Amino acid sequence: MFESANLKHHLDKAVYRREAAKLRQALLDAQYDLQQNGRFPVLILIAGVEGAGKSETVNLLNEWMDPRHIRTSAFFDPSDEERERPALWRFWRALPPKGKIGIFFGAWHTMPIIQRVKGEIGEGEFAREISEIQRFEKMLCDEGVLLLKYWFHLSRSQQRKRVKELAGDPKTRWRVTDRDLEYFKLYKRFIKVSDPFLRKTSTGEAPWIVVPGADARFRTLTVGKHLLAAMRERLDEKPLKRVPDKTPPLPAPADHLNVLGALELDQPLTKAGFQKELEKWQGRLNVASRDARFKALSVVAVFEGNDAAGKGGAIRRVTSALDARCYTNVSVAAPTEEERAQPYLWRFWRHLPRNGRFTFFDRSWYGRVLVERVEGFCSEADWMRAYTEINDFEGALLRHGTVVVKFWLTIGKEEQFRRFKAREKVSFKRFKITAEDWRNRKQWDAYETAVCDMVDRTSTSLAPWTLVEANNKYHARIKVLKTFCRALEAALERVGKAGARKGRKKK
Amino acid sequence: MFESANLKHHLDKAVYRREAAKLRQALLDAQYDLQQNGRFPVLILIAGVEGAGKSETVNLLNEWMDPRHIRTSAFFDPSDEERERPALWRFWRALPPKGKIGIFFGAWHTMPIIQRVKGEIGEGEFAREISEIQRFEKMLCDEGVLLLKYWFHLSRSQQRKRVKELAGDPKTRWRVTDRDLEYFKLYKRFIKVSDPFLRKTSTGEAPWIVVPGADARFRTLTVGKHLLAAMRERLDEKPLKRVPDKTPPLPAPADHLNVLGALELDQPLTKAGFQKELEKWQGRLNVASRDARFKALSVVAVFEGNDAAGKGGAIRRVTSALDARCYTNVSVAAPTEEERAQPYLWRFWRHLPRNGRFTFFDRSWYGRVLVERVEGFCSEADWMRAYTEINDFEGALLRHGTVVVKFWLTIGKEEQFRRFKAREKVSFKRFKITAEDWRNRKQWDAYETAVCDMVDRTSTSLAPWTLVEANNKYHARIKVLKTFCRALEAALERVGKAGARKGRKKK
Repeated sequence: MFESANLKHHLDKAVYRREAAKLRQALLDAQYDLQQNGRFPVLILIAGVEGAGKSETVNLLNEWMDPRHIRTSAFFDPSDEERERPALWRFWRALPPKGKIGIFFGAWHTMPIIQRVKGEIGEGEFAREISEIQRFEKMLCDEGVLLLKYWFHLSRSQQRKRVKELAGDPKTRWRVTDRDLEYFKLYKRFIKVSDPFLRKTSTGEAPWIVVPGADARFRTLTVGKHLLAAMRERLDEKPLKRVPDKTPPLPAPADHLNVLGALELDQPLTKAGFQKELEKWQGRLNVASRDARFKALSVVAVFEGNDAAGKGGAIRRVTSALDARCYTNVSVAAPTEEERAQPYLWRFWRHLPRNGRFTFFDRSWYGRVLVERVEGFCSEADWMRAYTEINDFEGALLRHGTVVVKFWLTIGKEEQFRRFKAREKVSFKRFKITAEDWRNRKQWDAYETAVCDMVDRTSTSLAPWTLVEANNKYHARIKVLKTFCRALEAALERVGKAGARKGRKKK
Repeated sequence: MFESANLKHHLDKAVYRREAAKLRQALLDAQYDLQQNGRFPVLILIAGVEGAGKSETVNLLNEWMDPRHIRTSAFFDPSDEERERPALWRFWRALPPKGKIGIFFGAWHTMPIIQRVKGEIGEGEFAREISEIQRFEKMLCDEGVLLLKYWFHLSRSQQRKRVKELAGDPKTRWRVTDRDLEYFKLYKRFIKVSDPFLRKTSTGEAPWIVVPGADARFRTLTVGKHLLAAMRERLDEKPLKRVPDKTPPLPAPADHLNVLGALELDQPLTKAGFQKELEKWQGRLNVASRDARFKALSVVAVFEGNDAAGKGGAIRRVTSALDARCYTNVSVAAPTEEERAQPYLWRFWRHLPRNGRFTFFDRSWYGRVLVERVEGFCSEADWMRAYTEINDFEGALLRHGTVVVKFWLTIGKEEQFRRFKAREKVSFKRFKITAEDWRNRKQWDAYETAVCDMVDRTSTSLAPWTLVEANNKYHARIKVLKTFCRALEAALERVGKAGARKGRKKK
């Protein structure tokens, strides 16, 4: 990757001045157009070796463009807030919205590369990280992000010269930190790791651009001109009338038998039986939630189901067993303006709990493959790729140690009709029933198909879907509570075992 | 993935008969349209557990459609021809051309899954295989293949019943092989491995379709109807006038300095010096090529360069040191009709050497990022993704143990003019110079940019580009010969070491 960058690039002052003046104006124009156009965000990754002019370039970009519409984020050691969430969380919360420019000083590639250079992770783990980065960046591009990745490079002799210069001058000596010197010693290894990394994470949509860093004028113009060309190309492109459909259809069962139809929706449980069970399982859950091992875990619970299936009631029966300071309820309706300006998973990442906490999602990211699919709010290609994206998202949660519990509450079509009518009659329940509910009801079969595909394609051994027969609310609530409690207990068990293993290893 | 398939699906005979009759006619029509349309191939993967009706389904598809335009390939233990080439070779050579249907009975997923089930490969290696499969299938889809992946499933109790039935009847007992019984014992582990595998290799463009296999009528209609719907959708789609451009531009150096310009093209070497060196290196190469360790290796050599840079001459100086039975020269010009009906890498895969052999490519797959880019024979998106695809392709060669040597022969613009003119004058050289050569010359700068991007993005530590200063043919030929010989010697050394390690391990 560094063949061209290893050459002795240089630019005359006169040439630079002339070009830079034109460039500044053009960049400002492009930035203005981006904001007016508002159809995509620009995300700039700044990476590479130390001393190659990264921060100088970022400063200059901020100087040349309107800094009010650029947000620069540097990622140092993660804060405790960040450590207690999946590694990608810190990047998600810094993503620029449509119409804006975000500059990431270091990003998701930084840690894997450093860990590999230092030998803290092996070749296999590194390959896994690369594959995840490929899929994550693909998702960003599919969501419309203009992702520009700049890698600042110095040859070994250029880096040596740079460090000597800085260290030799009392005025700049402070800039040469111990970390710089440490990295300098690792130069060869750093190149050996980053060279294939850059190749493997370069794709047609998001190629790494290697920037020779030794000559300040050259590197500035390289980045500035490329940024301008990339923005201009996207801004000037006419929107397409039709996106090509490259996704084959999913089949529906010829015998109309599906996982929902196979459920016995009317399950027996009396009010008295319910009270007994409720007491028992709420007690158990409360004990589990106060377990010391829970400090290393968090819980994300997803509630999906037919309209009027009793999601809210089921959630309340769980949360009333918990300390109110430890959980958040997130009720998902139409996205806000801020949320619409981001990739669709953004509005769920922002609500992820810290360790020792619970988040309950009343509807969730599965809206992408349910309502958005059925109502045509997104293209077939969009919801088809969402299965992989959702599995990757939940995979990131699970790897972090988050417990993921997912419920689909099912009621029959007649039972729904009964409940809708009842809601219309009782004044304090009337807010719960709208014209939209009646409209959704007409799409009953389409929703059923979507739910079955969702269960097939996103049920995993560690985050399975639990289908809840919900015609009888008592049964539904106990099944939810019990499943939730057991999932938490099993996770605590795993933490205990892992802790014990660690303890043994230390001895 | 198996939630829906685990249900007891069943189809009445009467319903089946009615539906099947319609389906057969519609499938025949679709097959005819596919051939007329001729714009894409259909590749059907048949996979899943034993006894789930895979071969019955394939037979039926062949019966229902015109078998002359279907090619079914089963992949048993690889032949020696196949073992001596990268693992994907056997699949490449069986790919259906545009307008035809190919059925793969087992494919690239088979070995990794079985090896993982048997514990022959670890989680890390399995993850690497998955990531490669994702990229390989993406390439097929990007090249326009309609890839349909069917996974035939039986629940454990269904499989038990099936094996009992077959083994109990003297007429079918022969069908229950020892391998079936072995796999049956591994059922749980097989599901545990294949369930996440199917999810991870399901993409929007090529999702796995799980087919419940217990009921013959149900599974037949499931596959038949889905195949029809998928073909119809693609056939009926209007071709797009414009493909969306999601690739940012690549930068060109602001100072016009590049890896080609940095070369000193006129290198000194006299005819006498050339003769001496030639003798020395041809001798060394001949010895290396007859080394016993070469039986475990093969060599692929790529020669690219400016028109009239002397590729042919350089190749001849290498091959004249080799046993003529051991090498093949592949001269790459415009693709044949057969080659145009395949993904662009197909015509190179077909020429890969067996172990102990050499293939010399006079021009190569790099045409994709050179002439096809410059002349606009493919879209920007196509050549931008080609860098990754080429790196993956060469990665497969290297992992197999193939030595990959790549030369770019450079001459100056004036030197080229001199040679063109000389060729026009000498009657027996006149065939070497055409109007196209003069046309290409006008694109000199565009080619130079393309070459530099190619070197930056496809030079790897094990398959680096060697840039050859070629104004002086003597120098160029010796540099090529020397580099080639040394690469082979180094590879023999590695085989020797690996062999020694193996030997020590056995002791």
